[in-house]
This record gives sequence, structure tokens and C-alpha cells, in this order.
Amino acid sequence: MDDTTRTRRAAHDYVDRLEHRDWSGLAGLLTDDVVYEMPQTRERIRGRDRFLRFNIDYPGDWHLRMRRVVADDRTAALWLDVRVAAEQQDACVWLEVSEGGLISRIVDYWPEPYEPPPGREHLVERW
Amino acid sequence: MDDTTRTRRAAHDYVDRLEHRDWSGLAGLLTDDVVYEMPQTRERIRGRDRFLRFNIDYPGDWHLRMRRVVADDRTAALWLDVRVAAEQQDACVWLEVSEGGLISRIVDYWPEPYEPPPGREHLVERW
Repeated sequence: MDDTTRTRRAAHDYVDRLEHRDWSGLAGLLTDDVVYEMPQTRERIRGRDRFLRFNIDYPGDWHLRMRRVVADDRTAALWLDVRVAAEQQDACVWLEVSEGGLISRIVDYWPEPYEPPPGREHLVERW
Repeated sequence: MDDTTRTRRAAHDYVDRLEHRDWSGLAGLLTDDVVYEMPQTRERIRGRDRFLRFNIDYPGDWHLRMRRVVADDRTAALWLDVRVAAEQQDACVWLEVSEGGLISRIVDYWPEPYEPPPGREHLVERW
């Protein structure tokens, strides 16, 4: 398995372990000193134990589905479909993988819906 | 040049041509029927001419810098640092590339800052 295949696999496994609340499986994908960041809130969580706790405690019956993953040897970008009850949101996640194939850094973006500014209606269609 | 290298190059060129307002150069990177989507506003622009017009007309002295790109043979994910005067925002962009190496689909996410919900202060640091 080449490094790109390994990184893509880590990305799929990451989403799978979260979706299945397989916390020991998730722990096995992460470096001890994994860093998790949410730039929109300027929040950072350091270390596997705290990151697991964050996920275990996260409220709501959330579900994740991979829409797309792009990987190279040490980085992956994930486009997720996230659902909590009837609410749907997309997320963009950036992963860095260590030399040993473990996830060492996770950066999450949670883009919210908003109304478009006026002035471009002649160019766009809405869905 | 293999397909992954070509797709990564297209991603870098896309940002470069936008940043330099090189509209003919940008046009040369796109398929005639390129589709541009902004899922947060549920807006879609069809076709190269309209997409160019959208960018030419876009207000503000905006500047783009590539923070990261991940590419495979036909897809790229771009993490951008976007600045308009003193305002800074990150963007996540997904590109699809045609068999001929032209960009055929662009999906933009513009995540906005927000305040974190209470209850996780014991796990996180802020920056």
C-alpha cells in the first residue's frame, strides 16, 4: 500500500470510527499528540484523550457520511455530509498524517447557510 | 506530467489567475460548461462566460493565497486564505477536472467565524 492509499484509508477509517462511535478504533488512528482545530471559533484541542472526550461528549445524534475525499501522501481533504436529526450541514476537514500513518492534525470547517448578497441574480440560479 | 500533477497544477493556476485578474488566463483553465456552486447560499452559475463575469464584477479588493492543496487525478481540494482589506477569511474549494485537464466544476465554501457553544472550555484552548 503506497502512502497516498494509506492516507486515503485513514480518512475513510476516521469517518467510519466516528460514525460508529468506535472510540477505541478511533484512538488507534490518532497520534498521542494529535491536534484538533476549529478555525471558525479559534478553538484547539491538544492530545488524543481530550479529542476523544470532546467527541464522546458531543451532543446530538450526529451522523457523518463521506461525500468526497482527496488524498496525497501525507494530507487528506474530506467533504462530509453531517446530519443531526432533520438538520443537514456540510463540513470540510483537513487531515495530516504522520510518517507512521497516524492522524496527527485535524482541522474542521463548518460552513453555515447564509443569504446571498444582492446584485448577482442575473448570473445565478438557486436550488 | 501525470494526471495528479496536472490537476494540482490546474488548482495552483486557478488561484494565480484569479489573484492576478488574468481573465483570459482563467478562461483558458475552464471548460465551456463549467459549473460553479456555493452550497451555503444554494447558488449555481453555469458556463464559463457567466463565471468570468461573476468574478470580474465581484466587489472589493480581494486577494487569494493558497494555504494548501490536495489533488488526485481528477479532483483537488484547496484551502485558501482570502483577504479583503483588513478582513481575513479562509475558504475551502473543491475542483473537478475534465479528462482534458480543464476545470469543469468548482464548489466554494466560505466558513464564517462564530462563538463556540458553552460546555467544552475544559477541553479547548482559544487563539
